[in-house]
Amino acid sequence: MAGTLVADGLLQPVADQLSLRRSNLSLVLRHLATAGPRSRARVAQETGLTKATVSSLVGELAERGLVRDGALERGVLGRPGHQVELLGSGACGVGVELNVDYVASVVVDLTGRVVASERLPLDGPRVGPVAVLDEVARVVERCMDVVAAVSAPLAGVTIALPGGVDVEQGTLTYAPNLGWREVPVISALADRLGRDVPLRVDNEANLAALGEYRAGSAAGTADLLLLTGEVGVGGGVITGGRLLRGGRGYGGEVGHMLLDPAGQVCGCGRRGCWETVVGLAPMLRAAAGPGDPLLDPTTDLDRRLDELTRRATAQDARTLAALEQVGTWLGIGASLLVNVLNPSVLVLGGYFATMGAWLVEPIRRQLAERVIAPAAGGCRVEISTLGFSAAVRGGALVALDAVLDDPTTVPAGATTVLPRAEVAGT
Amino acid sequence: MAGTLVADGLLQPVADQLSLRRSNLSLVLRHLATAGPRSRARVAQETGLTKATVSSLVGELAERGLVRDGALERGVLGRPGHQVELLGSGACGVGVELNVDYVASVVVDLTGRVVASERLPLDGPRVGPVAVLDEVARVVERCMDVVAAVSAPLAGVTIALPGGVDVEQGTLTYAPNLGWREVPVISALADRLGRDVPLRVDNEANLAALGEYRAGSAAGTADLLLLTGEVGVGGGVITGGRLLRGGRGYGGEVGHMLLDPAGQVCGCGRRGCWETVVGLAPMLRAAAGPGDPLLDPTTDLDRRLDELTRRATAQDARTLAALEQVGTWLGIGASLLVNVLNPSVLVLGGYFATMGAWLVEPIRRQLAERVIAPAAGGCRVEISTLGFSAAVRGGALVALDAVLDDPTTVPAGATTVLPRAEVAGT
Repeated sequence: MAGTLVADGLLQPVADQLSLRRSNLSLVLRHLATAGPRSRARVAQETGLTKATVSSLVGELAERGLVRDGALERGVLGRPGHQVELLGSGACGVGVELNVDYVASVVVDLTGRVVASERLPLDGPRVGPVAVLDEVARVVERCMDVVAAVSAPLAGVTIALPGGVDVEQGTLTYAPNLGWREVPVISALADRLGRDVPLRVDNEANLAALGEYRAGSAAGTADLLLLTGEVGVGGGVITGGRLLRGGRGYGGEVGHMLLDPAGQVCGCGRRGCWETVVGLAPMLRAAAGPGDPLLDPTTDLDRRLDELTRRATAQDARTLAALEQVGTWLGIGASLLVNVLNPSVLVLGGYFATMGAWLVEPIRRQLAERVIAPAAGGCRVEISTLGFSAAVRGGALVALDAVLDDPTTVPAGATTVLPRAEVAGT
Repeated sequence: MAGTLVADGLLQPVADQLSLRRSNLSLVLRHLATAGPRSRARVAQETGLTKATVSSLVGELAERGLVRDGALERGVLGRPGHQVELLGSGACGVGVELNVDYVASVVVDLTGRVVASERLPLDGPRVGPVAVLDEVARVVERCMDVVAAVSAPLAGVTIALPGGVDVEQGTLTYAPNLGWREVPVISALADRLGRDVPLRVDNEANLAALGEYRAGSAAGTADLLLLTGEVGVGGGVITGGRLLRGGRGYGGEVGHMLLDPAGQVCGCGRRGCWETVVGLAPMLRAAAGPGDPLLDPTTDLDRRLDELTRRATAQDARTLAALEQVGTWLGIGASLLVNVLNPSVLVLGGYFATMGAWLVEPIRRQLAERVIAPAAGGCRVEISTLGFSAAVRGGALVALDAVLDDPTTVPAGATTVLPRAEVAGT
């Protein structure tokens, strides 16, 4: 009887033995990535595949340089066997973030380890799309040099963008805080790179949510809401273990919720959006008077946030009042989202993470008061440990999915040769 | 090689031949339910199973009274074969709704056909949980009589509830518009029924969204937002083809979004909730002055909505102004949800459907103005054709899932015998 794959009640017929083999290679590789190193016997037991099949699959994965034999494991039955483990150099994924005031990147290997990262301040709205895309292309080139240096096949490059993204067209549809519309990011980068690179684009908060779900402190929490504070406010929603994208991929647009009808005009032209009370600029304006260096856009943001942290730690009254006010507004908007989405965890990212120590309590108070379900629907509030790097991490991990979904994309014997001693157990 | 089932990257090992057989019985039955009657050869082609396997599986499904041979189908290859089709009497599902001012029910057979339905007005907050549950138990009894009368096995009974529901405990956790908390609905009904009935509970808007997704005019739209207007406002979210439940099942709580900080006090005790501007009572109050029969709670709601429709059709100025106002507020709240969820369709249910002709345009205007993504993110607005019955339909279909997920729950030869002529093709 042929094997069948079922996801969400949709039929995914297994057309032939080749695609079945590919599915099973993916099944074993993903299981090792999720569950960690383990013996062939244990993989067989946990996946329902036969031991002979698992041995054959592991053999092929090893030939493709994706796994190797690690430590000896003594099982309950039979003779001890080597644990199979992922090989970092099996593939690398690259995540690059083009945001309003910086470009950042990370290279992650198949085991999830960060191989390299960088972050450059850049005034996007001022220098404009051409110069920003030039810079992004240079960052991608440097990442690819790193990947080549570790002799790993490149699984792909994901570009995180601060706005609505047409994932299929590869376009930044709109980005109110950059003032850009309909920028064809993928084709612009492909032209600049001048070689064939597997590029994809996605919204930065979506990728940050995936980064938190895969590699953050709340990793594996199936219902997770990420709120990230930068120039704007981004939202990324994981529900039932999957990213909420919506019909056209625009899901998670939370920054322009109407919360303060009597409030300020927003960058989007509307009045009273959430961003106008919890974005980076209103937060700094609340904390600093005219002439305060906190408001100097030429000073690196990290240094300004360090200064804000110093003042808050020193119990400066104006700073504490500003953070209390931002935290309260954050909690008001978050309550609304928690009512609709019932996440198990709310992760604070971006500058909300940097200043999290002062924001968490006012947020919790608003959740307790405003969420209809008992005990805030079970939602806890956590400060991201990935911070500003969540989106690039998520992007790199998404790029690696290409290999995890279809390990045959990595050619056998291409870059990595298993040492003889380690092949013995295969 | 053993078959494997993969859903969302989670491993679901196929432990043995028996569970593999069960999975494949479910695969074939679901395929027939979704795709409609078709030949064994076509089922084989579309599922990736072999023809011999499909014939054996169909034979077992027929023995269990779930399918039968229907019309002849001439294929491209080979001799003509009978189409296999679902047999309505294979199983029935029951949906019952306990709402603030009515109890409703529906019996649906395996083909999705409505066998019976009823709807009783009932003043829930006044008569209290004991009397309401007595009434619900009587309604369930009558539904089971109907199921017995059509000689179908009962797949299950789903109770739709207007509030937060603990699905696992079988409890209505909170229902602000009933003024109830922690009502153990399943155990209370089990006591009253005095026999073993497979009961489950869920939030009414969640079930209505499932009803729309399975049987409504937008059926099959993977990203669907249902907003249903009754005493309160319910929200049900389908995202990526699945119901958004959240961590504890409280997802879709939209009625208490803070939209009008200067507004009325809500039943929940907070000020300015969405319900206070678009619920049934504020809508009727906007449309009618003191002493108007529209405000007479002893008059059946359907008759009052008929009267409202008559006035709107006759271009009564106060009625039209009230509907315009409610539609505008509906659009303001819906825009926020559309930004976060990016649904492909917004379905108006409950009284929003009854009065939909006058609400759709103001909603569309607000979406066009307030949704950040271009063209409202591709979200169209539709009036439910299921109306107030969406939740019971969804409940009955969810109950039938028990049989679709595991056809072996229906014993062979239990209630239905296939006529000799129709068995011939098996």
